[in-house]
This record gives sequence, structure tokens and C-alpha cells, in this order.
Amino acid sequence: MMNRRVVLKGRPEGIPQAEHFELDSAPLPTLAEGQVLVRNHYLSVDPAMRGWLADTKGYGTPIEVGDVMRAFAVGEVVDSRNDAFSPGDRAMGLFGWQEYSAVDPSSVLLRIDESEFPISLYLGVLGVNGIAAYFGLMDACAPKAGETVVVSTAAGAVGSCVGQMARILGCHVVGIAGGPEKCDLCINEFGYDQVLDYKREANLEAAIARACPNGVDVYFDNTAGPISDAVFKHLSIGARIAICGTASISSWEPWPSGPRFERHLLIKRAKVQGFIALDYVDRYPEAVAQLGRWIKEGQLRYREDILDGIEQAPSAISRLYSGANQGKLLIRLPASKG
Amino acid sequence: MMNRRVVLKGRPEGIPQAEHFELDSAPLPTLAEGQVLVRNHYLSVDPAMRGWLADTKGYGTPIEVGDVMRAFAVGEVVDSRNDAFSPGDRAMGLFGWQEYSAVDPSSVLLRIDESEFPISLYLGVLGVNGIAAYFGLMDACAPKAGETVVVSTAAGAVGSCVGQMARILGCHVVGIAGGPEKCDLCINEFGYDQVLDYKREANLEAAIARACPNGVDVYFDNTAGPISDAVFKHLSIGARIAICGTASISSWEPWPSGPRFERHLLIKRAKVQGFIALDYVDRYPEAVAQLGRWIKEGQLRYREDILDGIEQAPSAISRLYSGANQGKLLIRLPASKG
Repeated sequence: MMNRRVVLKGRPEGIPQAEHFELDSAPLPTLAEGQVLVRNHYLSVDPAMRGWLADTKGYGTPIEVGDVMRAFAVGEVVDSRNDAFSPGDRAMGLFGWQEYSAVDPSSVLLRIDESEFPISLYLGVLGVNGIAAYFGLMDACAPKAGETVVVSTAAGAVGSCVGQMARILGCHVVGIAGGPEKCDLCINEFGYDQVLDYKREANLEAAIARACPNGVDVYFDNTAGPISDAVFKHLSIGARIAICGTASISSWEPWPSGPRFERHLLIKRAKVQGFIALDYVDRYPEAVAQLGRWIKEGQLRYREDILDGIEQAPSAISRLYSGANQGKLLIRLPASKG
Repeated sequence: MMNRRVVLKGRPEGIPQAEHFELDSAPLPTLAEGQVLVRNHYLSVDPAMRGWLADTKGYGTPIEVGDVMRAFAVGEVVDSRNDAFSPGDRAMGLFGWQEYSAVDPSSVLLRIDESEFPISLYLGVLGVNGIAAYFGLMDACAPKAGETVVVSTAAGAVGSCVGQMARILGCHVVGIAGGPEKCDLCINEFGYDQVLDYKREANLEAAIARACPNGVDVYFDNTAGPISDAVFKHLSIGARIAICGTASISSWEPWPSGPRFERHLLIKRAKVQGFIALDYVDRYPEAVAQLGRWIKEGQLRYREDILDGIEQAPSAISRLYSGANQGKLLIRLPASKG
């Protein structure tokens, strides 16, 4: 039996494209003592991949040419040399863009023991996206009812979750998104109080000032760049900013320039906190339980954008940056139909 | 009896100079019900004054032309229409650059009930400088033994206090200061493990990398600008940065540009926190008690730079920026000799 895999062919500059990857086929991996064999049902496509592929020290060691592409995936255990796992168990973890993964238990980020939810959700709203939204908002920003919360990439897999949680908490929630479809989603699907289309606003800073008359108490940042610059100018005293992503900046080598924030952070006694969901792995169950309750209550909605077949993976990352995708981008493998 | 005062004559652009102020003489203020009359012994000279004098919304409302210059001062109560204060009581607060101040109790930041320390210390190491160092380091940065702490304006009234506290906590403490005299002070008086002279280092970033082989866990920032840029490039994972001042930037209108930090903060899961000592006024006694214990134990040293006579005040702010002053800059009034 063979294992189809997506491996890195050449290191990308800028946004990774199909040409940087190669679909190959390798013998099914053999298990070392303690390992389990996972058959993947869904593979995740995430903005973090751009950082993993860069040849610089980011989070995690860079992926080398010839390696299977690092990726979150969900699947079921089909063979086990570990007492803690049995065939049929389901799990989410860094299993890579491949059909089968021989993994150490340390690669398992979340066990999906019993669930009334489709397994694909454990890559999105109940996976690292929802978890990032949860800890970034709750831990790093701790919004209070009545505060103003601004979210960039407001319709995205993380942003939509942040916006809805802020609404559940009783905040005034302002989304920033690009294009009328995403803006419609923000209002009609995700319940933002207001949305600003950064592609259409001639003066985003003025639009933020109008949408946030009491200033911005919390900013959940997925973009960096000019959108953040505009938000930063309207922080309220005691503002909290969580940096979750930097989607708007195409290269950080060398560091691009922008307005200096130091004095504004000082005057506003503001806090800027970078965070990575992987740091919270011990607390994932807490987040997943709460997110699941909100889904069941109908308070938390999500969108999925599912492509069929592993051969779709190589071109999928660029889809995140083209503005084309709406909702959590996933690759469904035939296994998931079985 | 007359009250000599320093009033604002014209709003400065950049560093305030003697010509922006005027020494006048006014009748002794009369007390409203609830007020107390304070005879000031020492007037403080602080970098924060530059912000108070700017015609923009900073912290506190701008000082208007014709107003007495806002300033911290220590003095004794000489008349009281408030049951909580009696003649002879001593206090520190925003009493202004003047000999006598009629103040509301809300202007009193700290009561100096009994003390074995000279009253002048309540403007420096036991005043807002020491208090800013204490809360900025302890609260915003929470350094642990063995961590690397970097302090800019390392020999200054705030910085010297931060550096010594970090040493008391068992940290590896690296100061950044300008010129050989200040660097000597850092090593020989304040006990820094290492000091970098930013005026002499051809490559400050490389010098920081050498001095902080494990990265910078905590950065207490009094300067912003290129010094901070160099420090930011060497943050360790989980770094905490407190922004206390922005001494190196001469104007924030418009916001100057510099390297964008967003991605680095994300990768390093770093936190940047602006803070202002005045926000901690309810907890001043806690800080002053601890700082006082360290002084008594000989663990916390300080320098004062005392000018005699209120007529010295108008030119004193610029002295902070010329590099000439070493230690807490104070104006002593004749009252303090009585």
C-alpha cells in the first residue's frame, strides 16, 4: 500500500504556489515503538504555512526541500504501537499533507474522543483557528461587555470566530474585511455590529474613528500593515492588542517600515501581545468545550471551504491570499468518505 | 507674602528651553474649603514635562500659556482647611513649579508621614521615578532570576532603579547609556553586569547580541527609537517590554517611522506594555515601602543632581536632554533649609 504525500520541491519567495510542491507516493510508513499510524481525513491549509516555509527562524524549524509539507490534519488511528491509542481513535495534530502519518503521541494536539460534530470542525472552529481566537481574545485581550473590539480579516476562519465571541461577550464589534461578499458575511452570518471594507474605504482611519467613537479597546490583528496602522491611531486608554497574524505583509526580510507606536502605546497604556495557539496546547480542551457549547447553542457559526483530493493541496495556500476563499480552507481525502 | 512661580510663556517645539518660561510673583494663594497650603521644599524636573507641554493630547491636558508649570514637588503643609491635613505634614504631589501651592487633597500622591530618608528622595528613588521603575519592572515585566534584563537610559533616575532591582532579583542586567561617565556609574555604582555605550558602539545590535547570548527576556525602554530597534531584534521567546519613556524621539508629530515589529512580536510571543506611574497611585505605599527597605539594606543606590533656587527651573528641562545631568534632577527651594 502506498502513501500519497505533498513534499516541498523548492522554497518559495513570497506566497507559496503549486510549483513549489510535488505530489509523490511512498511506501506506507512503518511504526516505531510508541508510534501510531493515522489515516488522515482532512488536511488543513493555513496562513501559518507561509512562515513555516520561509528560510528564516520563525516559529518552528523551517521545512526542508524534500520534506512532507507540515500541516494540521484530522484522522483516525489505523494501527498503534502505543497503549494509549487504539484503532478507531480520532485525533488532530501536525500530521502533514499526506494520506497516512506515522506519528509520535507528542504530535497529537487534540484527541477527539466522542463528538457530535463533523470531524472537519477540529481543523477550524474547534481546531487551531477557534482555539487561537479563543485564547487570543480571552487571554491576551480579556474584553468586557460594552467595550469596542476591532477584528481584521473579520470573515476569516480565525477572525469570524473572534468577532462572534466578542459579540457573545456583549462588546461593540467592528470587523475589517476586503470586498462586499466578505463584508456581507460579517454582518449577516457572523453578527458584527459594523464592518469596514478596507478595499473601498478611501480613508480607513476616519472610518475607524466613526465606527469606534469611544476608541478601540481591543484589537485582534490578523494583518499588520496599513490596516493596523489605522486602528492603532484610535486606541483607547488601556487598549489590548493581540497579534495573531501578519497577512498583509508579503515579506519580512528586511523588516518593513511603518509608523512608530512607542509613544502612543505609552500615552494609551496599551498592551500589544504576540501569541501562538500552539503555546496553549495544554488548555485546548477548555477552549474546545466552550466553543462546542456555543456551536450547539447556535451562537457560533462557521464556514468551510472544502477542496476534494490531495492533489488540490499544492495550489491551496495561494488561495488564502487571493481573496477567493471564504471560510476554513480544507482538503478532503477519500478516507473521509469511508 | 508673595509666591514665586514659573509660568509657561510660549509653547515649545521640541525640547523646552529657558525662554519658554517666565518667573513671576503672585500673591499667596487663598485656600478654598478642603484645600491645604503646601510650602514646597523641592521641585522635580522630569522628561514627562515635554509631553505635558506639547499641544497634543498626551497624558493629562496640555499646560496652557500663563499656567504655572505642572511639576511634582515635595513640601510641608503650612495651612489647612482640611481635617485630614495639619501644619507640619509632608507630602509629594503635583504641586507645580512654585514656592507655595494651594492644593486639593486629590493632588497629593503620597503622604510622607514618618521617614528616616531625606524628603528629596520622595521625588526620585522613593517618588515617581522609583515607583515607575518598580511597577514597570515588577508588574509589566515580572522578571525571574536568571533572565536577561536590558535597560535603556540605564544611569538615569528611573533606569538606575530598574537595573538595581533586576540585579536584586538575580537577573543578568545589561544597561545602555551614553558616554563613559554614565557607563562607569552603571557598573561601579548601580551594579549592572554589563553596559553598552550607544554613542561609541559602531553596531549596537551586534553588541546587544554579544551581551545577551540567550536573548533579551525583559526590556525596560526609556528611549524608543534606534536603541529600541536594536534591542527588539534580539528578544527571546516570551519577552516582556515595558515602555516608560521615549527620550530619543524629538517629535511625534507626525509619527516617525521605524521597523515594523508585528511579526517579531508574534514569533517571539512577546508583550509590549505602555505604562504610566500615575495609574498606580493606589499602590504607591507598597512600592515606597519596598524601595525604602532596599535603600536601608544598601542594595539600592541613587544619585541626585540638585540645583539651588527656583530661578534654575526654566532651563532645567533641557539639561535632561543635553546628557549633562547625572541622577535625579531637582530644584531646591530655600524652604528646605529651614
